[in-house]
Amino acid sequence: MSPLVIITGVGPGTGSALVRRFHDGGYQVAMLARTAERLSDLESELPNAFAVPCDVADPAALANALETIEQRAGAPKVVIHNAVGGAFGNFLDIEPEVLQQNFQINVMALLQLARWVAPRMEAAGGGALLVTGNTAAYRGKAAFAGFAPSKAAQRVLTECIAREMGPRGVHASFMMIDAVIDLPWTRARFADMPDDFFIQPSDIAEEVWHVTHQPRSAWSFLTELRPFREPW
Amino acid sequence: MSPLVIITGVGPGTGSALVRRFHDGGYQVAMLARTAERLSDLESELPNAFAVPCDVADPAALANALETIEQRAGAPKVVIHNAVGGAFGNFLDIEPEVLQQNFQINVMALLQLARWVAPRMEAAGGGALLVTGNTAAYRGKAAFAGFAPSKAAQRVLTECIAREMGPRGVHASFMMIDAVIDLPWTRARFADMPDDFFIQPSDIAEEVWHVTHQPRSAWSFLTELRPFREPW
Amino acid sequence: MSPLVIITGVGPGTGSALVRRFHDGGYQVAMLARTAERLSDLESELPNAFAVPCDVADPAALANALETIEQRAGAPKVVIHNAVGGAFGNFLDIEPEVLQQNFQINVMALLQLARWVAPRMEAAGGGALLVTGNTAAYRGKAAFAGFAPSKAAQRVLTECIAREMGPRGVHASFMMIDAVIDLPWTRARFADMPDDFFIQPSDIAEEVWHVTHQPRSAWSFLTELRPFREPW
Amino acid sequence: MSPLVIITGVGPGTGSALVRRFHDGGYQVAMLARTAERLSDLESELPNAFAVPCDVADPAALANALETIEQRAGAPKVVIHNAVGGAFGNFLDIEPEVLQQNFQINVMALLQLARWVAPRMEAAGGGALLVTGNTAAYRGKAAFAGFAPSKAAQRVLTECIAREMGPRGVHASFMMIDAVIDLPWTRARFADMPDDFFIQPSDIAEEVWHVTHQPRSAWSFLTELRPFREPW
Repeated sequence: MSPLVIITGVGPGTGSALVRRFHDGGYQVAMLARTAERLSDLESELPNAFAVPCDVADPAALANALETIEQRAGAPKVVIHNAVGGAFGNFLDIEPEVLQQNFQINVMALLQLARWVAPRMEAAGGGALLVTGNTAAYRGKAAFAGFAPSKAAQRVLTECIAREMGPRGVHASFMMIDAVIDLPWTRARFADMPDDFFIQPSDIAEEVWHVTHQPRSAWSFLTELRPFREPW
Repeated sequence: MSPLVIITGVGPGTGSALVRRFHDGGYQVAMLARTAERLSDLESELPNAFAVPCDVADPAALANALETIEQRAGAPKVVIHNAVGGAFGNFLDIEPEVLQQNFQINVMALLQLARWVAPRMEAAGGGALLVTGNTAAYRGKAAFAGFAPSKAAQRVLTECIAREMGPRGVHASFMMIDAVIDLPWTRARFADMPDDFFIQPSDIAEEVWHVTHQPRSAWSFLTELRPFREPW
Repeated sequence: MSPLVIITGVGPGTGSALVRRFHDGGYQVAMLARTAERLSDLESELPNAFAVPCDVADPAALANALETIEQRAGAPKVVIHNAVGGAFGNFLDIEPEVLQQNFQINVMALLQLARWVAPRMEAAGGGALLVTGNTAAYRGKAAFAGFAPSKAAQRVLTECIAREMGPRGVHASFMMIDAVIDLPWTRARFADMPDDFFIQPSDIAEEVWHVTHQPRSAWSFLTELRPFREPW
Repeated sequence: MSPLVIITGVGPGTGSALVRRFHDGGYQVAMLARTAERLSDLESELPNAFAVPCDVADPAALANALETIEQRAGAPKVVIHNAVGGAFGNFLDIEPEVLQQNFQINVMALLQLARWVAPRMEAAGGGALLVTGNTAAYRGKAAFAGFAPSKAAQRVLTECIAREMGPRGVHASFMMIDAVIDLPWTRARFADMPDDFFIQPSDIAEEVWHVTHQPRSAWSFLTELRPFREPW
């Protein structure tokens, strides 16, 4: 039977690219997103990908989605937490609820996912949980007050999970994407930039595939990705 | 008129030492803690220290407490967020609500405090906001899954605040205390350890005083503190 | 024509594994080591691998070796600085000359290599320079006073190179191997440890191959590697 | 008898301010600089400050200077390594010898100082060794290839020393000054900047005094200093 990957936050960019990469690699793909509409194209195109509409910020909905997935396709070999709650604004400008909400999506949903999958992966002899993030997980720039704290928390929670589950055979890791992703809306916003200013979603997906399939003698926790032109 | 300091989390250790240090330094001291009882001794001993019972995890209660303080003593020159929600256990063992609750105390209460005090400090020509923390703010050890993510988020939020408010004259900073604090319960738990194994609350308080009174040409964001014997 | 890789520090572990991996991948391999003897087996086994005896701590010898290589095989597409000068002992116990010597091998030889290869790679439209290291590049434990400073310097020099050459199409990166490598002498020293305590040289080599062949929209600077059981 | 401080790199900015601060604090001050001329004003102004001309990059000269100081004033209670070898330019532009030379001043001279003072301080029941640095000790920007590696090495060596000597009662620490220091030449270069753009040497000196006199229950390893306006 094909192995299963669960991917949260399947939008038009990284999420879709991840779906395609794992589908090409022989996986069944459970795609989570808030609205099923955005998933219908992928679903009709890719025979082994199926949509599970779910707001990961809602613990009951997420629990439900996981149960639905398990009944259909068993336990996942790989889980990718790509759903993200973002925000822009300094600590005076943001609504505090925004940070709370982002914490829910970025951290609490990850915790719920990990608590559900880790024992199943351990029982199955192994598995991988990967979280996508960016530099906000490492530093607090003024304009990211509603976001960066939740990503830092997410990264550190992923570390807590990696340290607990590594010796038990489950590989948790964090991918820091220090880049502007090539998407219709980023192309519009950075209209003057050349093609190679952007990171390609398919290249992110390839790297996620790589990290989630490393042999267990040589696992990466942190993976940094930047386009060659990126200043840092 | 004496300047005002607001200190959250006034317990028997660091909190009380902070109260004494600022009182000795000529400050009026607004002491926040969940129960007024633990503050009554300090209140009767120190004429310019007053208790404001408040669960900082409750936004309405915190807003109330701040209003009460302002009516009594005006705007603070210094605020120290020493209240902390802690936890022990790996990500499988903890109750998720514990992390949520610690995020509320460690991050959301800080955000609320900062949003309230920063404009007042800026209007007054300056001020300082200091947050106490520890190594959990920097790394996710397995047994701190319910705590470390919230402290990392807190540190990064403090950075967001520092970067926004620094140029506006308000000094936000984070103190990382990599130590076991000398308290009755830590003495009981580490009964075999010599006196100099522990960091003294009064030494922490002295350092907090120092950092919150640095001249603005030379501010510290991060302060690390360890007893001389501490391995790290 | 086959692309060329130059690998310094070809010993029985990581170095040999790197040689084999790139040879399998269709590269000509220039192998640098202080003594040719240790390279003769590889040389006779692998038709496109050739030995260039060279003490990389000697700038004239290194310049000579690079010229020899270029005359034989042209400019390299990939360079891996795996040669390392190590030491054990606290700052009082070591001979200062040891740190000086390690600086020469780990930093100055890297600088010389980079100055020689970077313009050639840029002229050829791209290339990769990868440096292998470990946690000493990030922190100074007491017993690594003769080593850690040189590895930290090496990592930061690699960053300087990466930031300069990235936009010019040359990918510089650092691999932090937080592990005990599976070698005859480490097996002897950790005789009680099970097989999966060790990182496999072939798995390191596979990761080096991966990083040095990333598409330029998604490059890693830092790669962390640890066996699944490794505490960190 | 007055305690002794040894200060390397006594120029017109931080070095002179350190001399004055420790002299004011009751110390005898041994001032090291390459040329005695720049020290003569301080020497005639401050009765307990004396010049010891010495190029710290020359191990024999440094050993000589230390012996001279000890004969005159005994063992130091505090040593501040403020001498610094700097450089500007990317890895292709610099002369490799520059990095070698900076390594000599920033790292090897520190190692020599530490090896000489640490046992004397331990025998005397304590002491402090502080190193001044900047952000180059933490990251490798392209234009600092001849400098940043040596400062990273210096910081990590200081960590090695701190970890070894802390439990033995000697406090080693690193001060990261993320600022433009107020000096005649920096004023000329940043002529358009207001006064409060610059960090004051006297404020740095005050902080060095503070850190080198912390009680041993609460020592800082890293101290960060920035003017309030500094972006970071």
